[in-house]
Amino acid sequence: MAKEITRRNEDYSQWYLDIVKKADLADNSAVRGCMVIKPYGFALWENMRDQLDRMFKATGHVNAYFPIFIPKSFLSKEAEHVEGFAKECAVVTHHRLMNDPNGKGVVVDPSAKLEEELIVRPTSETIIWSTYRNWISSYRDLPLLINQWANVVRWELRTRMFLRTAEFLWQEGHTAHATRQEAIDETLLILDVYARFAEEYMAMPVIKGVKTPNERFAGADETYTIEALMQDGKALQAGTSHFLGQNFAKAFDVRFLNENNIEEYVWATSWGVSTRLIGGLIMVHSDDDGLVLPPRIAPLQVMIVPVPKPAPELNEAAQQIMRALQAKGISVKYDTDDRKRPGFKFAEHEMRGVPVRLAIGMRDLEQRQVEVARRDTREKTLQPIEGIEHHVAQLLEDIQQNLYQKALTYRNEHTTRVDTFEEFQHVLGTKGGFISAHWDGTTETELKIKELTKATIRCIPLDAQDEPGKCVLTGAPSQRRVLFAVAY
Amino acid sequence: MAKEITRRNEDYSQWYLDIVKKADLADNSAVRGCMVIKPYGFALWENMRDQLDRMFKATGHVNAYFPIFIPKSFLSKEAEHVEGFAKECAVVTHHRLMNDPNGKGVVVDPSAKLEEELIVRPTSETIIWSTYRNWISSYRDLPLLINQWANVVRWELRTRMFLRTAEFLWQEGHTAHATRQEAIDETLLILDVYARFAEEYMAMPVIKGVKTPNERFAGADETYTIEALMQDGKALQAGTSHFLGQNFAKAFDVRFLNENNIEEYVWATSWGVSTRLIGGLIMVHSDDDGLVLPPRIAPLQVMIVPVPKPAPELNEAAQQIMRALQAKGISVKYDTDDRKRPGFKFAEHEMRGVPVRLAIGMRDLEQRQVEVARRDTREKTLQPIEGIEHHVAQLLEDIQQNLYQKALTYRNEHTTRVDTFEEFQHVLGTKGGFISAHWDGTTETELKIKELTKATIRCIPLDAQDEPGKCVLTGAPSQRRVLFAVAY
Repeated sequence: MAKEITRRNEDYSQWYLDIVKKADLADNSAVRGCMVIKPYGFALWENMRDQLDRMFKATGHVNAYFPIFIPKSFLSKEAEHVEGFAKECAVVTHHRLMNDPNGKGVVVDPSAKLEEELIVRPTSETIIWSTYRNWISSYRDLPLLINQWANVVRWELRTRMFLRTAEFLWQEGHTAHATRQEAIDETLLILDVYARFAEEYMAMPVIKGVKTPNERFAGADETYTIEALMQDGKALQAGTSHFLGQNFAKAFDVRFLNENNIEEYVWATSWGVSTRLIGGLIMVHSDDDGLVLPPRIAPLQVMIVPVPKPAPELNEAAQQIMRALQAKGISVKYDTDDRKRPGFKFAEHEMRGVPVRLAIGMRDLEQRQVEVARRDTREKTLQPIEGIEHHVAQLLEDIQQNLYQKALTYRNEHTTRVDTFEEFQHVLGTKGGFISAHWDGTTETELKIKELTKATIRCIPLDAQDEPGKCVLTGAPSQRRVLFAVAY
Repeated sequence: MAKEITRRNEDYSQWYLDIVKKADLADNSAVRGCMVIKPYGFALWENMRDQLDRMFKATGHVNAYFPIFIPKSFLSKEAEHVEGFAKECAVVTHHRLMNDPNGKGVVVDPSAKLEEELIVRPTSETIIWSTYRNWISSYRDLPLLINQWANVVRWELRTRMFLRTAEFLWQEGHTAHATRQEAIDETLLILDVYARFAEEYMAMPVIKGVKTPNERFAGADETYTIEALMQDGKALQAGTSHFLGQNFAKAFDVRFLNENNIEEYVWATSWGVSTRLIGGLIMVHSDDDGLVLPPRIAPLQVMIVPVPKPAPELNEAAQQIMRALQAKGISVKYDTDDRKRPGFKFAEHEMRGVPVRLAIGMRDLEQRQVEVARRDTREKTLQPIEGIEHHVAQLLEDIQQNLYQKALTYRNEHTTRVDTFEEFQHVLGTKGGFISAHWDGTTETELKIKELTKATIRCIPLDAQDEPGKCVLTGAPSQRRVLFAVAY
C-alpha cells in the first residue's frame, strides 16, 4: 500500500495528492474545482472545527448563520472590497428549471430570470453588515462578537484539494465595536487564538505578522496573518484576521449612539480559517509512508491489530485495553478484519496517520505485553499490558510535542537572513523557506521581487526588531526585516 | 415586552412571527426568502444538531461533505426525482463579475458563461450517488452509512421563517446497502432516531407512519415520516426517511459484486430533518408570553436575576449557586445588567423561553433562600439555597416531562375518529387536529379530499390496526384508518 504513493523528493505535488487520496481524506467530484470531503477527512475537520469553536466561545463569541446569497449590488458598496475581490464567483441568474421542450432532460426556464443576480458568498462582510445595520443603534448593542461556520465559493482557475478549491468550508468571524482600539484588540486576540490552535493542536509552528498593503484583504485597514512553512520550503497562509476600520460601517451606514449620545460609525473586524488548514497539516507532518497526524486532532488515536488475526484470547485482551484507554479519553479501535494480513493493516493505518498502533499476538499475550509502534518516528517497543493506558497517554503527548519540535526545527533551519539580492535568489533556488530581508516599503519593489523570484512578502513579523538596513533589491533604507517566501 | 406580541387566538401566524423576532431566534435578510439565524436561535439549533449527531454516530453513521453544486444534467437522471422535484431552484449560469463599463458597480461578465449550468443543491441524492459509484465495487464496501450537515436551497414562493425558507440548514443521510431488507431496516432505524429525538429532546410527540404514493419523496419507493401536531390544530411533517430501492443506483449505475460474486445494483436510503424543526418546537410549546423551550435543548437552562439589582452579597450568592448548578451540568447565567428593572428582565427571559428563573433579593438571602420560577407553568416557589442544584435538576426534568405530556394530551384531544365526510368537515372546521378516517387507497380520492377541505393524508400510522371500513368520501372499502390533517 505505502508503495503506491509518490515519494516527496520525486514529485511533491503528486505526493500531496496521493496522500489526500490514499489516506481517504477527500475525493474529486463531478463539479469542477469542488471536492468531496470523505468521512475520515471530515472527522479530522470536525475535530479541528470543534476545538476552534471552543476557543471562540471561550473568548466570548457566539455563532449565527447568514444567507448563502449576496445581492450583486452589495458587492459594489465597499469600493476596495469589490476592486480586490469577488470577481470570480458563482452567479445565480435564474430560479427555475423546466422540462426540455425537446424532451431531453431539463433546461433553465428563461421566464424565471432574477431581477437582481445573486452571488454565492465568497465571504460575507457585505450581507452581514447590511444586517448589522438593523441590530446596532446604541453602544449598548456593542460589541457584537459573531462567528459563522459556512461554505463559501470562489471560482478559482487552478484548484488543488484542500489548498484551493472552488467551494470550501470555513469559519468567518464578523465583529462590531464601539472603538477603534477595541476592534484592533479583537483582531489581535483572534490572531492569538489562531496561532495557539495551529501550534498546540495542529503542532504547526506559525509566524504572526502583518501583511503589506499589497497583500491586504480587500476592504481592510490592516490584515494580520499566521504563516506556516511546508516541508517543500513553501509558505502557507494559514489564517487571517482583519481590522476593517469603519469601511464596512460606512458602506452599509451602520452607526451607533455612543455613551455621550453622539453618533459614530461602528468599528469592524473579520477573520477566518478554512479547510485549507488540512492541506497545511498534511504538508507539515506527513512522510513517504502517508499521513502523519498530531494526536490532539487525529480522528483515531490508537489502533489495535491482532497478530496474525482475531482470536478469542486476543479479542478479550484488546477489549480490556480499549476500556482502559477509553477511560482516559483516548480514542481507539480494534481492527477485526480477518481478510487482511497484519503487515497490510500496519501499512494501512500508517497511511492514515493513526498516531499509535498496538499489535498483540499470542506470544505477547503470554508475557502480558503488547508491541507499541508510534507513527511519527516508526519506533516500536514492547510494553506491559498492565498500565498500558498510562504509557499510551504519555506517548500521545510525546508524539504531539515531537511533531511540533520537528516542524519548528525545520522552519528554523529554513529561515535565512540575507542581505543581497544574489543571496536572496540563491537561497530561494536551493533550500527555499523563509527569507528574512530588508525591503524599502514600496509595493513597486515588492512586485518586482515577486516577478523576479516568485517570492512574496508573507508578513512583517509582529516580533520584528527595529534594525536599520538597506532594501535587498533597491538598496533604499529599511527599518526592519520582513519575511519573504514562495507561497501556496 | 410580553405585551408586544400578538396573542395566539387573535392571529396565530403573526404570533408565530412575533415569537421568532422577539425571542431573538431569527431575522429577515436582504435576500428574498432567506433568513438570518440569530445567535440565540443558532445556539438552539446547535443543541439540536449536536444531539442528533450523537444519535447518528451511535448508530454507526459518519459525516462527510459533498459539493453544494449539482450539474444540471444530473437532475434528469432519475426520472421520478426530476419530475417531482427540483424545478424551483437556484441556477448558477456564470462564474465571473466585471466592472460595469458604464461605471455603475458590477455586472455579470457575459464571457464567463458556464458550459453546463449548476444547481445549488435542493437535496443531494444525485451528486452523492454519482460519487458512490466510485466508492462501491464489492459487498465489502457496504454498507455506506454517511450523513452530511449542509445548507440547501429550494426556491419557495411563499416563505415563513424556519418553516419554509429558500435556504435552510439540514442534515441529509445517504446510505448504501447490499440488500433490500438492510435498506428498509435502515430507513426504519432512522425513523426511530427521529421520533426519539423529537419526543425525548424536543418534548414533541410524533406519529410514525408511511406516506401515501402521492406524498412520497420523488424517487423513493417508500417514504416514512414523523408527524407532529401544532397548537393551532395543523400538522407539521417533522422528518422523513426514504427507502429509495435501487432507483438511484440504477440512475447512476452503482453496482457491486455480492458475496457470491454476482453483480447487483445497490440499495439506498436517504433521510433528513432541518431547521424546520425549530418552527415545530415553537408552535408546540410556546405561549402568549413568548417562547417555551424544553430544558434538554434550551441554549440556557437557568437565569439568575438579582432583585432589585446587582449587589456584592447577591453577586456572591449567585456565583455560589452558579457553581453548584454548573457542577451538575446545568447551564446558567447571572443577569448583571443594572439598567433594567427585575420585572422587565423577568419578561425578557420568559420571552426567550429560559426554563427556570431564580430571583434573589437581600431578604431572600437573609433566609438563605431563592425564588424559583418555572417558565412552563409560571409557578413560583421559595427554595433553600442549600441544595438548590438538586431542586433545579429535578425541576428541569419535570418541565421536560410536563411539556411532553401537555403536548401529548393536546394531540390526543385533537385526534378524532370520524366516519362520515360531514363529520370530517365539521371537525376540521371546528377543532382541527388529526382526523382518523377510512380512505379507499386511491390518489384520486386523496386529491379530492384535499381540494374540498385542504386536509391531506399525513400518514398511514405504523401502528394502524387492521379495521375494515368504508372510505369517508367514496364509501369504497378500506382496510385501515389513515391520518388526515391540514398541514404546514
